[in-house]
Amino acid sequence: MNNNKIKIGIAGLGTVGSGVINLLEKNKAEILKRSGFEISIVCVSASSKSKKRNCNIEGLNFYTNPLEMIRNESIDILIELIGGELVAKELVIEALEKKIHIVTANKALIALHGNEISEISNKEGCDVAYEASVAGAVPIIKVIRESLNANEIEWIAGIINGTTNYILTEMLKSKKDFNDVLKDAQDLGYAEADPAFDVGGIDAAHKLTILSSICFGIPLNFEAIYIEGIEDIELDDLNYAKELGYAIKHLAIGRKNNDGIELRVHSCLIPKARLIANVDGVKNAVVVSSDAAGPTLYYGAGAGSLATASSVVSDIIDISRKILSKSNNSVPLLSYQRNELQNKKILDINEIESRYYLRIRVKNKPGVLADITKIFGRKSISIESILQKEDLVNDENVPIVLVTHEVIEKNIIDALKDIEKLEVVKGKIIKIRIEELES
Amino acid sequence: MNNNKIKIGIAGLGTVGSGVINLLEKNKAEILKRSGFEISIVCVSASSKSKKRNCNIEGLNFYTNPLEMIRNESIDILIELIGGELVAKELVIEALEKKIHIVTANKALIALHGNEISEISNKEGCDVAYEASVAGAVPIIKVIRESLNANEIEWIAGIINGTTNYILTEMLKSKKDFNDVLKDAQDLGYAEADPAFDVGGIDAAHKLTILSSICFGIPLNFEAIYIEGIEDIELDDLNYAKELGYAIKHLAIGRKNNDGIELRVHSCLIPKARLIANVDGVKNAVVVSSDAAGPTLYYGAGAGSLATASSVVSDIIDISRKILSKSNNSVPLLSYQRNELQNKKILDINEIESRYYLRIRVKNKPGVLADITKIFGRKSISIESILQKEDLVNDENVPIVLVTHEVIEKNIIDALKDIEKLEVVKGKIIKIRIEELES
Repeated sequence: MNNNKIKIGIAGLGTVGSGVINLLEKNKAEILKRSGFEISIVCVSASSKSKKRNCNIEGLNFYTNPLEMIRNESIDILIELIGGELVAKELVIEALEKKIHIVTANKALIALHGNEISEISNKEGCDVAYEASVAGAVPIIKVIRESLNANEIEWIAGIINGTTNYILTEMLKSKKDFNDVLKDAQDLGYAEADPAFDVGGIDAAHKLTILSSICFGIPLNFEAIYIEGIEDIELDDLNYAKELGYAIKHLAIGRKNNDGIELRVHSCLIPKARLIANVDGVKNAVVVSSDAAGPTLYYGAGAGSLATASSVVSDIIDISRKILSKSNNSVPLLSYQRNELQNKKILDINEIESRYYLRIRVKNKPGVLADITKIFGRKSISIESILQKEDLVNDENVPIVLVTHEVIEKNIIDALKDIEKLEVVKGKIIKIRIEELES
Repeated sequence: MNNNKIKIGIAGLGTVGSGVINLLEKNKAEILKRSGFEISIVCVSASSKSKKRNCNIEGLNFYTNPLEMIRNESIDILIELIGGELVAKELVIEALEKKIHIVTANKALIALHGNEISEISNKEGCDVAYEASVAGAVPIIKVIRESLNANEIEWIAGIINGTTNYILTEMLKSKKDFNDVLKDAQDLGYAEADPAFDVGGIDAAHKLTILSSICFGIPLNFEAIYIEGIEDIELDDLNYAKELGYAIKHLAIGRKNNDGIELRVHSCLIPKARLIANVDGVKNAVVVSSDAAGPTLYYGAGAGSLATASSVVSDIIDISRKILSKSNNSVPLLSYQRNELQNKKILDINEIESRYYLRIRVKNKPGVLADITKIFGRKSISIESILQKEDLVNDENVPIVLVTHEVIEKNIIDALKDIEKLEVVKGKIIKIRIEELES
C-alpha cells in the first residue's frame, strides 16, 4: 500500500455506483486538497461489461463476479453497491475475512444482517461504513454516531422515504388521488414499477432499524418494527388535516419512554408549525431529540446518483484516513461498544399512547354524533375537536372528522370496532396518529 | 496516560463550562457505553472559586489563572471556554506548545486568530476542535469537514445568531417595534445588556468567517466580510414581506461565483416556501448547497448550556479517540490541507447581484411613481412587482413597496441616491436584499 494512496474496488455500477465513479473523477482535485491522499479505483464489477452506463470505466479491471474481484485484486476498501441481500452479504463477509474494509449504501444488508456483519468486522479489525444507507446525502449516521454521542437520545422521527413523501405532497398539490399520483411518480422515476417496498413502508422500516439501533443502543431488529404504508391516505384526509393546521407525513418514529421503546413506521398528522411538516417532495429529513442538544433536524436529498455518492465518498475518506494513520480505534459500527448493545423491551403498537385523527362516514341524520360519542365515553376517550363540513350537510352520507386527546391505541381500536358496527356508520373508519414532535 | 482514560482541564466555568461539567456527569454511563473510554475532569479554572455556580466542582483542582493550570497539571485536552480574545489566545498557544490538544467554543478566537493557531497546532501535532463555536448544538463544522468533503461547496446561508432571529420573529408575532422586542429579549436573557455584538451582526460575521474558510478553502478573513445588523428593519417591512410571500431573516451568506467569493451578513427576504424561512425564535439553521449533495440543511439550538456542551463533548470524544489510537492523521483544522488554503478574490458588496425589496415613503400625489420608475429605467433596473396599499391612500405620505429584478448593488445604490433627492420622496429608502436560496 502506497502511503498516500488508497485502492478501492466498486461492486455494482447502477445509479449509485456510477455516481461514485463520476464524483471521484469530477472532484478529484477538491477531495485531494481536503484529504491529502489519493483514492484510486482499481477494479469494478457488474453483471454486464457492455451495458451502456453513465460513467467511464475504461482502464479499470472489470469483473462480472464481485467475489472473483475481491479474490483477484488487492484493494483496501470494497464499495458494495450491488444492493439486495444475499449476494451482498456473502461478498461483504468474504471481503472482511480478507481484511478489506467496507463502504456500503445497502440498507437491507445492514438492517437484516448488520448484527452478524458487526461481529465479523470487529473480529477482523475492519470498518463497515454505511452513511449512504439512510437518507442519501444527509449525514444522519455520522451525526448520531459522532456528534450527538454525549446525549441520551429521546426520540427520532424521520421522513426517510422520498417516494412516499413525494406522493403525499403531490396528492395535496395537484388534488389527485393516490393511484393517479403513484402513476405520475412511476413515470418520473420517483417510484419503482413495483412500489410496494416504498409505499408499503418496508424501505423506511429498514432505515428505522438502523437508526434505532445507533440511537438507543439496541441490536438491529427489523422484526420489531410496526409498519403501515400510505395506501389508505385519501385526498380528503390531506385536506382536512390542512384545515386543522397539520400536514400528513409518512414518518419513521423511534421513541424511548418509561416502559420501553416504540418503533413504528406510519402516516401521521404533524402540526404545520414544525419544520419537518414543511419538508416536501422527494426530500428527506430527520429530527433527533436528545437530552442535551435538544431537537436538531437534518434535511436534504434522500436519493439520487451524486447525492448518494456524496455520502459514499465521505465514508471512503473516513476509512482511508484511518487506514493511513494505522489507527485501531474506530467509532463502533452500531455507535455503542459491541458489549454494550442491549435488548430492550419494544412496545407493541397496542400499548402506545397517541392523539388520533378520525374520519367517520355517517348517515346524515340526527343523533348520530351522540351514538358515537357515547361509545368513546365508555372507553374513556375524550374528543378534542370536531370538524363537520356545512357544505356537505345535504348529502345522504357525510364525513365527521374528530381529533381525540391522548389515548392508548388498544382503546381506540376497541372503540372504532364498536362504532363501525353502528348502523349509521358507513364503511371503514380512517384513523391517523397525531405526532406533536415538540421542538 | 491510562490507556482508557483521558484527562481534561476546563478553563472557564460560565454557561458553557458548567454545562460541560454537568453533561459529563449526567451522561457518564451513556458516553462510556459509546466511546469505550473514560473522560476525567482533573482541573478547572475560573476567576473566583467561591462564586455560586450551576455545577459541582468539588474534588477538582481549582485555579484562578488558567495559565497556571496548564503549567501545573498533566492533562491531555484543554477545554477553552473563557471566551474573549487575548487571554484565550495566549492560553491556547501555550497549551499547544505543551502538546495539549484543544477544544474550544470561542468563535472570536478561531475567526480572528485561527490562521496562527492552525499553524502552531500543525507544528505541535495537536488538534484544535471548535464545533461549539458555530450554531451551538448543530454539528455544522463536522458536517462540512467530514460529510460534505467530496463536494465542491457552492454557497452557504445560515441563521447563526439566535438573538437577531428571536427579535425578527417576535416583532412580527407580537406586532412590536425593534426596540420594544430587544428590551423583552434582554429581560428573557436572549440578548446581552450591550446588544451591539449580536444585533449589529459581528457575532454572525465571526461565525461566517469560520464557515467560509472550511467551505471554500480560504484562510480565515474576518475583515473581508460585509456586515449589516437588523437595527433598520421595521415592523412594516416584516408585514409587507409576509404579504409578498417572504420572511425576513438575518443571514450569513457565503457564495462562490465566477468572479470570486461573496461574504456578507445582513437581513434578507427569503421565499416562505424555503425551509430556512420557517426557522423561528432563537433557533439556528444552516443551508449548505454543494455540487453532489445538493442543498442540505442543519437545524437546532444555537446556544444554551447543555446544547453547546453537547458539541464540546463530541469534540472531546473525537480527540480522545485519536489520542488513544495514536493516530497521526486528523481532519485538517480548516478542512483543507494547510498548503491548499488559497486566498481568493472576495467580492466587494457593490459588485454583487441581487433582487431588492424597496420601501419608499412618498407624497400622495399623481405622477410620483412615474418619477421614480424613470430613474430606475435610466439605471436599467426593472421592477418585478409593486405593492401599494389601498387603505393608506388617503394619507398625505404613503409607502410604495417595490421588488426589483436582478441588478448589481452599485446600480441600485446610485438609483436610490437619485430617488431620495426627489422632492416627493420622504426620508431614507429601506432596501433589503432578496435571496432565493433555491433548494
